[in-house]
Amino acid sequence: MYRLLSAIVCIFATIATWAQGYTINPDSTVTFSIYAPKADSVAVAGSIASRAITMTKDASGNWHGTSAKLDADLHYYWFEVDGVMTLDPKNPYVVRDTASLLNIFILPGEQSNLYTINDVPHGSVETLWYPSPKLGVKRRMLVYTPPNYRSDSEQRYPVLYLLHGMGGDELAWEELGRTSAILDNMIASNACEPMIVVMPNGNIKELAAPGQTAEGFYITNGKRSCGENNLYESTFDDIVSYVDSNYRTLADKPHRAIAGLSMGGGQTWRISMNFPSTFDYIGLYSAAIGWNGSNISAYDQLSPLIKAQFAQSPQLYWIAIGRDDFLYDNNAEFRNYLNTNKLPYTYFESAGGHTWSNWRLYLSRFLPMLFKNS
Amino acid sequence: MYRLLSAIVCIFATIATWAQGYTINPDSTVTFSIYAPKADSVAVAGSIASRAITMTKDASGNWHGTSAKLDADLHYYWFEVDGVMTLDPKNPYVVRDTASLLNIFILPGEQSNLYTINDVPHGSVETLWYPSPKLGVKRRMLVYTPPNYRSDSEQRYPVLYLLHGMGGDELAWEELGRTSAILDNMIASNACEPMIVVMPNGNIKELAAPGQTAEGFYITNGKRSCGENNLYESTFDDIVSYVDSNYRTLADKPHRAIAGLSMGGGQTWRISMNFPSTFDYIGLYSAAIGWNGSNISAYDQLSPLIKAQFAQSPQLYWIAIGRDDFLYDNNAEFRNYLNTNKLPYTYFESAGGHTWSNWRLYLSRFLPMLFKNS
Repeated sequence: MYRLLSAIVCIFATIATWAQGYTINPDSTVTFSIYAPKADSVAVAGSIASRAITMTKDASGNWHGTSAKLDADLHYYWFEVDGVMTLDPKNPYVVRDTASLLNIFILPGEQSNLYTINDVPHGSVETLWYPSPKLGVKRRMLVYTPPNYRSDSEQRYPVLYLLHGMGGDELAWEELGRTSAILDNMIASNACEPMIVVMPNGNIKELAAPGQTAEGFYITNGKRSCGENNLYESTFDDIVSYVDSNYRTLADKPHRAIAGLSMGGGQTWRISMNFPSTFDYIGLYSAAIGWNGSNISAYDQLSPLIKAQFAQSPQLYWIAIGRDDFLYDNNAEFRNYLNTNKLPYTYFESAGGHTWSNWRLYLSRFLPMLFKNS
Repeated sequence: MYRLLSAIVCIFATIATWAQGYTINPDSTVTFSIYAPKADSVAVAGSIASRAITMTKDASGNWHGTSAKLDADLHYYWFEVDGVMTLDPKNPYVVRDTASLLNIFILPGEQSNLYTINDVPHGSVETLWYPSPKLGVKRRMLVYTPPNYRSDSEQRYPVLYLLHGMGGDELAWEELGRTSAILDNMIASNACEPMIVVMPNGNIKELAAPGQTAEGFYITNGKRSCGENNLYESTFDDIVSYVDSNYRTLADKPHRAIAGLSMGGGQTWRISMNFPSTFDYIGLYSAAIGWNGSNISAYDQLSPLIKAQFAQSPQLYWIAIGRDDFLYDNNAEFRNYLNTNKLPYTYFESAGGHTWSNWRLYLSRFLPMLFKNS
């Protein structure tokens, strides 16, 4: 009976033969396939092409299409079968971006090796609710602690606060940004200092990612994240206090960094000037500079705050943006303000636009500069 | 400029109007819809029907189909568009079950309220890698700590070890089993004691869930979890030691429980007899009793261990199974052995079969019985 039972259950494990609907070719092109014998037209789209790739059907009802050469990166894709957006039925690896699901794969190479879960010591990621006494709410966040955080119970660590963009939430930097993989890999190679990374939910009108609140499984439209009068940015010390009270941090300016993408870059801009003694390392990734709801009309309102922040000489004020980013001019205008006022910053300009490909790249470039003088 | 920027970005947040492809009707039937104007046939399948529901097309190219009355539960579904399995393009809420993605929703009611994230104090869930010195590997697990675990830094807690089934992994109890929601809700209503819940990966041949290892984004076929000579079950004290060293546990038999579903129920059966002084509460949920790879041929080999375990009088030995479960006879045979040998246990028989619906139910019935005498 038991031998039979074992045999039966082991058969279950081998029934499903498996092959994703993509093949990475030796020349770094990728061929996508999907079985849809009755369809009239099938295409594949995503980060794998600037416009959807038309696929062709073979005699067995399988459709195939091949991309151009792709970069070593985490890529995403989906199929369009007779105009209906369809995930790859053979690839269960997906991430949610706002309200869409995307199939993902990694095209191997030097940069994407940072995004891969390798056989290195792993930190841990905790999902928790922190209180914000000033806002009277509890909100969800993720906290990465580095390898050995538990076993070496005396060691204290610097902290990076990492903020998501519009449409994102506390899961975005981990799921789309591959934060824990990047940290594990870069700590393992001594490319950056071991640190704690805090990924809060920055949508002032929400408490947690969609599906993770009492509102249930639906996307709350249109009220997601538009800023409200500096409310999140002016109470950010609630988060810092919680982290310093609950984790073994080095709780001073030389050991705190803050960075964010897009809306989160705008929040980083504002938070870092609100709390000029708190953060020594500031990273604006494709930042929506000036982002603060609707009532900030010019730098001249905030210029005293900005100048006061720079008077405290942050170790690093880093601005990164892609040449094709729709916020390029917005960032150029701010850089012009900084230049005019002789406020020192470091600038990194990449190819591409307002993409996770760039934000992962920026994180991997930002981390090695942190906490080196502390 | 900034007013304009805010306006632009706020428009982004409101573009995507949103409605899932299902509607819960007042009579607890559910109507499913999908836009597929060119399709010849569309059906919807999942836990919402014993066989796929054929859908009908309206003039606008939308297909509709309605289920029978459904229980208050977490349900899953997918569409079949001209025979191609398709997720609901309007519902980003999915879980992965082995190598398939399933759309999910909750039909509200008393039982499913336990599976809902309500406005109650939340525990936290940590994803980490623990060392198993006896196996020479590190393996991934999830650890739920109850509300106030961080703030009340002296309090110690009992521990439930919760094991997944064949095809599952360390994410299964949290994602399909709704463990942290169930614990949060039942702790909030004093229906169970506050406790730590440990959800290890029990696949002896794997280190972590698919996609979470250096093997990357593919399912490892056929070598997933077939037991190997009691290897996982005989080294389970590595996990207990790690948890007792790294969490504020009550580290004795009266404060430890272990439970598992299917393969994990078989592991629970074996682990609890391997370590008769370790666990006072044992839960077999639809257990594959006798599960231990291929070389256990009868109870008589293990009977001395089983009798020694019962000689230490565990507080609770709980066997739960559905009347339609394919392991019903397997469990009946073991109950017959226990009856014959006058070994006391508690039995819970439900409707239904080998389903997550039952395993969530069993967890919610098991929790109130734990740690009451300690």
